[in-house]
Order: sequence, then C-alpha cells, then structure tokens
Amino acid sequence: MTVLILTSEEDVTADMVVLRLREAGVPVVRLDPADLTNGVALSGEYVRGACRGHLSVGGRLVSMSGLRSVWVRRPGVPAARAAHPSAWLTEESAQALYGMLRATGARWMNHPDAARRARHKPWQLHLAQQVGLAVPATLITTFPQAAREFAERFPDLVVKPVSGAHPQEPPRAVPTSRVAPDADFSTVAFGPTLLQRRVAKRADIRLTAVGDTLLAARMPVAPDAHPDEVDVRFAPASSPWAPVDVPPRVAEGVSRYLREAELAYGAFDFAEDADGIWWFLECNQSGQFGFVEMDTGQPIAATIARWLAGAGEPGHAGADADRSTAS
Amino acid sequence: MTVLILTSEEDVTADMVVLRLREAGVPVVRLDPADLTNGVALSGEYVRGACRGHLSVGGRLVSMSGLRSVWVRRPGVPAARAAHPSAWLTEESAQALYGMLRATGARWMNHPDAARRARHKPWQLHLAQQVGLAVPATLITTFPQAAREFAERFPDLVVKPVSGAHPQEPPRAVPTSRVAPDADFSTVAFGPTLLQRRVAKRADIRLTAVGDTLLAARMPVAPDAHPDEVDVRFAPASSPWAPVDVPPRVAEGVSRYLREAELAYGAFDFAEDADGIWWFLECNQSGQFGFVEMDTGQPIAATIARWLAGAGEPGHAGADADRSTAS
Repeated sequence: MTVLILTSEEDVTADMVVLRLREAGVPVVRLDPADLTNGVALSGEYVRGACRGHLSVGGRLVSMSGLRSVWVRRPGVPAARAAHPSAWLTEESAQALYGMLRATGARWMNHPDAARRARHKPWQLHLAQQVGLAVPATLITTFPQAAREFAERFPDLVVKPVSGAHPQEPPRAVPTSRVAPDADFSTVAFGPTLLQRRVAKRADIRLTAVGDTLLAARMPVAPDAHPDEVDVRFAPASSPWAPVDVPPRVAEGVSRYLREAELAYGAFDFAEDADGIWWFLECNQSGQFGFVEMDTGQPIAATIARWLAGAGEPGHAGADADRSTAS
Repeated sequence: MTVLILTSEEDVTADMVVLRLREAGVPVVRLDPADLTNGVALSGEYVRGACRGHLSVGGRLVSMSGLRSVWVRRPGVPAARAAHPSAWLTEESAQALYGMLRATGARWMNHPDAARRARHKPWQLHLAQQVGLAVPATLITTFPQAAREFAERFPDLVVKPVSGAHPQEPPRAVPTSRVAPDADFSTVAFGPTLLQRRVAKRADIRLTAVGDTLLAARMPVAPDAHPDEVDVRFAPASSPWAPVDVPPRVAEGVSRYLREAELAYGAFDFAEDADGIWWFLECNQSGQFGFVEMDTGQPIAATIARWLAGAGEPGHAGADADRSTAS
C-alpha cells in the first residue's frame, strides 16, 4: 500500500516526511498535479460495476486501489505545466484526478472537503466556541455602526483578514494589526472586517495536531515588546519555540475540534494571557510545521509519516494514532 | 423561520419556488452574494461562547439563527457588483458569508461541500456503480493505449467532458458526441478524455429528485433519429417530456445515491435501452427543472418549496419529505 503525496517539486517539509516513510520502508509516490499530461498520467475504468484506476508518475505505475493515504501538502494547479495549459484543461484534469482519488478508500490528510470548510474563519470561531475553547470576543461585519458599538464594548482591538493570504501571486500574508483608539469605522461598509479583542499575551502558542497526537510549542513575548506587535509572524523573535504541555481542557477542545472538522492535521494558534489561558486565534489546516520542529525538536514529520503509513479506518482521522501531548 | 435563496436577480426558476413559498406564507429572503457591500450587508458576533449573526438585504434584517433553509440556486460571485470589486474583496466576502451560513443550523439544498463533491464525474460513476445503478462501460484516461484497447472492447463509443461546461463566459455546454470508428487516440495524452459505451437508446430519462421525492420524465427518441444524435440537449425534440414511473430498482439506487452524496436535490440523466434498462449518465446537483415542469406538469417547484419550508433535521436531505414517484 502506497502513500501518495500531492505537492510541488521544491518542498523541504515534504522531503522530511518522505525521508521518514522511506526509512520505514513505506512505498511513497510524490506527484504534482501541475505535471498532469506532462510526466503524470491517469486512467480509470468503470466496467460491469467495478472501477479500476491507475496513476503514472515518471514512468512508475500506481494502482488507485493500492493507495493507503493521500497527503494534500502543497499541490500545484492541475495541468499548469502541460504543453498547452488552459483553464479548460485545468478543470478537466482537476475533476479527473481528484474525482478518482475521492472514489478510493484512501485516508486523507486532509480531505479536500474538510480542508475547504476549515478555512472559513467564521466557521472556525463558531466551532471553537462549541468545543469549549476560549475565543476572544470577535466581530465580522460590514455595518459601521456594529463596529463602533463593538469598539465601545471592547476598546482594545485588533483587525485581521476574514480569509487568509491576499490572493496575489505569490500569496501575501496580511498581518494582524492593532486598531487605533480613534479609528473611523465608516469604511467597514466596503468590505467585511474582522475585529477581535486584543489578548494581552505573555506568549504565543502553536499547537500542531496530527491525528490524535498534539504537539504544542510556546514562545514567550519579549519583556520589551511593544503592545502593537500583535502578530507573531511579523514580530522580531525574542526566543526560540519551546515544547510545552497542553492543558487538559485545551487538549479536549482541540480533539473535539478536529473530530467535528474531520481534520487529520491542524496547526492551531493560541495567545496565552497573564492567567495562563490559551485563547484560540485560528486553526490552519495546512499550517507549516518545519520551523516548530526545527526549534523544538518535536517529531512532527515522523508523526505525520506514521499517520500516513497507518492502516487505520479509511477517511478516519488518526484512528490508529496514539493520544499524546508533548512534554 | 426564513428560507434564504442565494441566486441572481433574473432567475425565473427561482421565481416559481418563491411564488409557492409566498402562497404557503413562508418568509423568504432572496439574496445575490454579488451584491455584498452594495445592498447586502452582514454581521456576525462571537462573544462569551455565543454566536449571533445577521444579514441585511435591501434594508430587511434577517437573523442567521432564524434561517430555516438555504437554497443555493444560482448565486453570483461574492461582491462582484461592489463599488470597487477585487479578487481580495470577493475572497473576504465569500469567506464571511458562507462561513457564517455554514455555522447555522439551516438545512441546505445543496450543501456547498456536497455540491462540490457531486460535480466530480469519476466519483459519480463510482457511486452509481456502488448503489446498483446500471452504468455504461466508461474510461477516463490520458493513456492513448488504454483508449485504443477500450475502443477494441467497446467499438461503439461516445466522448464527453470529464468536468462540465467549458469555463468561458458565459459557460458553454460541451455536447457529448460519437467517436468515429477510425478515431486516432494519440491526442488523449494531452488531456483526460472520457469515453463511454454508446447506449442504443429508445428514450431519454430525466429524473428530478427533491429530498425523497422522485419525479421522472421520459422523451422517446424519434424513429428517424440518427444514431449520431446522442446528446438530448442538442438533438431536435421529437416530442415533449412525459411523466413516467420510476422502476423500483432505480428508485432504490437513486435514493441511496442521494443519501451517500448528501444531496437534497439532484437531476439524474439516464438513457433507456431497448430492454427498458435505465443507464446512468450523470447526476447534476444543480440541474435545471423548469423545462420538465413545463412539459410534464410535475410539481417540482412546489416540492422544492415544501422541502425548503420543511422543519426536517438540519442538514438532513429530505428527512421530512414523503417518498413518492410520479405516475
């Protein structure tokens, strides 16, 4: 049984996982959907009630029914590197490839439907509330008056995008930033705006969940940090990420979140306040983990490799992984 | 409790359903996501574990928690008609609107995830096989040799798109056409090609499923029809569509298909052969129904209205509808 990794050629994070799978003797096929019809070929036959499919990558043939798991890591746009690329060829190739893969019994990290759903920030906030995680008061609105009233109730606010990265090429991360006390909210009418109570944080937390394994890392806020430096991605790093235990209530909430979201992988961001409470900021279903593993030495790549190699129930996130938290 | 219909302004099919809902005294809000920030506004607040959302359409305010059902009929691109449209504003608006709607308890016709999944032709064929529907032998391939071998086994073939309409503006339907006996399959290498055994049909069948209600219509093939006229959408109509009973085995298969696909609505196309067997061609989760209702008088719009107005279990397709077949 083979592990299929959908990603681009240059992906050192995927390399880490491939290395672990090779060490364990697990067959791996790495494929970029962008190479479809130009190095990558596919075929699926539906005859007399049975369905048989194959993929060919660099001359190597893999049976669809022999796929153990699919890791949707960083796939390119289907057929983008074909001899004559077009929107039509991309659409045809995407439907053919993902349509066939969806019909296999392979486990997904993450399933395309779960991945898409999990990107919706309003849905994330609602789910986080439901599973008992602490969520900072948040407003998403196009009503200037609603924004003004929210700012009166919660005077110390940050603003961040509702979606994720700006859709330019390459995508650009939009930093979370602090809202000035005298902010004019009239422009809220021109686009949905996400306002959130600023958590006076003493540390940032990155919790990487792989199946049932939760690996958390913590980076304390520098003593001299300016309160305007709200986004850990853009603030100067004061110290490396260090492993940290997951409080039981958070572990329970995160596990429920993953179950409800049907995610096998999730990178959770929390802000730890002065009372030690972890405030849920977001869950990125395709979040990077290389930098955490580098700093903490936590075996994230190995855990992903183990999950992908696992023979758990198809489509079931982490059915065969052990529950553990980092120490 | 309100029914929310996401569609464009000019949509006579939606008009038919709105009329039925109004007759039944069910509150309806019609909204085109394209009008976001320009006639349509939204707001969602997440405070102390609770979530409250609102939509405003033409000055009318609707609570998200008061939504009974959402009909994704023919929605425009979010914020496409905003004062300053952009890819970024579209992304932000889409995530905000659909993210909030996804977090409500409303029933969907159809849920966006189910709708997206259901468009994949290879997945459709596989599911149709699994639920026991008759599926004509089909090959989807980029291997010329596989195409040649398939053509030897099944000499009478049609070719059709793997995806659906050509992604030009407006989208263009690509007709299914017959493959010439001496076809050269070498170009198959340049794009996934769907080849299917041609069903020598004596009639076309359109089965419209709304919840558990199945309404089938039949159009006999004209006696003088040329065998190259394989696509009912492009062939000259010989006679109007007429109601027809659904064979019990097909009804069972279609019901299982809808359940597995988590669809509340589906337009199934079958080809009826000389033995009376209905061969599954496809299920279009957003297929038109106006022309069938016009010809047959079948109460499709009324059935959709009843489904949308129903108080069935949230997210459960047709939990409160009666099983019935047209007579």
